[in-house]
Amino acid sequence: MHKIDILMEKDIMEANRRIAEENRKMLADHNVRAFDILGSIGSGKTTLIEKLSIMLREKGIRSGAIAGDVAGDDDYRRFKQNDMPAVNINTGKECHLDAHLVEHAIEKLPLDDIDILFIENVGNLVCPGDFLLGSEKRIVVISATEGEDMVRKHPLIFANCDFAVLNKIDLAGYMDVNPKNVVEDFRKINPHKKMFLTDAKHGEGLKELMKELI
Amino acid sequence: MHKIDILMEKDIMEANRRIAEENRKMLADHNVRAFDILGSIGSGKTTLIEKLSIMLREKGIRSGAIAGDVAGDDDYRRFKQNDMPAVNINTGKECHLDAHLVEHAIEKLPLDDIDILFIENVGNLVCPGDFLLGSEKRIVVISATEGEDMVRKHPLIFANCDFAVLNKIDLAGYMDVNPKNVVEDFRKINPHKKMFLTDAKHGEGLKELMKELI
Repeated sequence: MHKIDILMEKDIMEANRRIAEENRKMLADHNVRAFDILGSIGSGKTTLIEKLSIMLREKGIRSGAIAGDVAGDDDYRRFKQNDMPAVNINTGKECHLDAHLVEHAIEKLPLDDIDILFIENVGNLVCPGDFLLGSEKRIVVISATEGEDMVRKHPLIFANCDFAVLNKIDLAGYMDVNPKNVVEDFRKINPHKKMFLTDAKHGEGLKELMKELI
Repeated sequence: MHKIDILMEKDIMEANRRIAEENRKMLADHNVRAFDILGSIGSGKTTLIEKLSIMLREKGIRSGAIAGDVAGDDDYRRFKQNDMPAVNINTGKECHLDAHLVEHAIEKLPLDDIDILFIENVGNLVCPGDFLLGSEKRIVVISATEGEDMVRKHPLIFANCDFAVLNKIDLAGYMDVNPKNVVEDFRKINPHKKMFLTDAKHGEGLKELMKELI
């Protein structure tokens, strides 16, 4: 049973990696830079993307989004209201996006009208880490309201990201969370990457973050 | 490929259900009532369990805990500091507890010294829903800091729970979340079950919740 499990997993992972590579090429052909945004429910991924999109627009950089959720289209509608080309993906019972789902979403996007593509993954800090989607970088977003132990509890996803964001820092004091300790935990796991401190709702820390995208 | 997938899933689910049933019997033999606590990272599951445990102790009811996490022992240590019999389960790369992991944890607990067992699942609102553990009831905990759309985004887990908790309501106003709308969404999906409003950190709403456990 375990042997079959491992073989199956290898097959699925290899198929995913192959499609992710195709996605990457397709995006590169259209000069689109894609960012996979990973993070738990309510970490503020959608707000962060909305705010960054507005700031990028002011610089003449056009962004689009893929909204990944188990069910519903709340995030998708927010992106559309923000005048962003967007596609909604409902995974049903699946806890993560995979390259195949993203491939179909990319087909529906007007790639030549997009410079930066945000791929908002399903809200979950575990499973999405295993599935490459074809993005240029992976950004993990956590929120100060999730508690100080978030990085320690999820070392793998932080080890494999290109940079991380600690959002909702306006609430850190109220939640008894010291952002320094979270950054310290992150540095232990991923010493060469940055963790940005943001309060996306009120626009704090977003300029520094935007510089990483352009 | 899909056929094998489905067969595999069926096998795994059936094996899990069988072990969950054994867990349920084992707990019943020792007069332990178990509650599976599901919810995303940082929804406040650990604080809720800690506070309820203290309140139960004042009534002469002894509680223990299983702390499920991908990595680390932060929650486990909190339970031990709170003088609760507790076992830590690290799932490694798995995004949920399963009945087999819980079976081994139960073996390590002094069941005759426990009246109520809290099984704190891995922080994730998707995958844990599929795996019964042998608990009497399943409680889904979400936090007002996660946004107003949480129930709409995860209908399955709310449809299959025995009751739900909207925690951190002290932050609802700040987060532009109207608890009434969240409760309304929950009622649409699961009309015969209750959603409790709590602020576990400051003890709000816990008495009503405790009544459901005893």
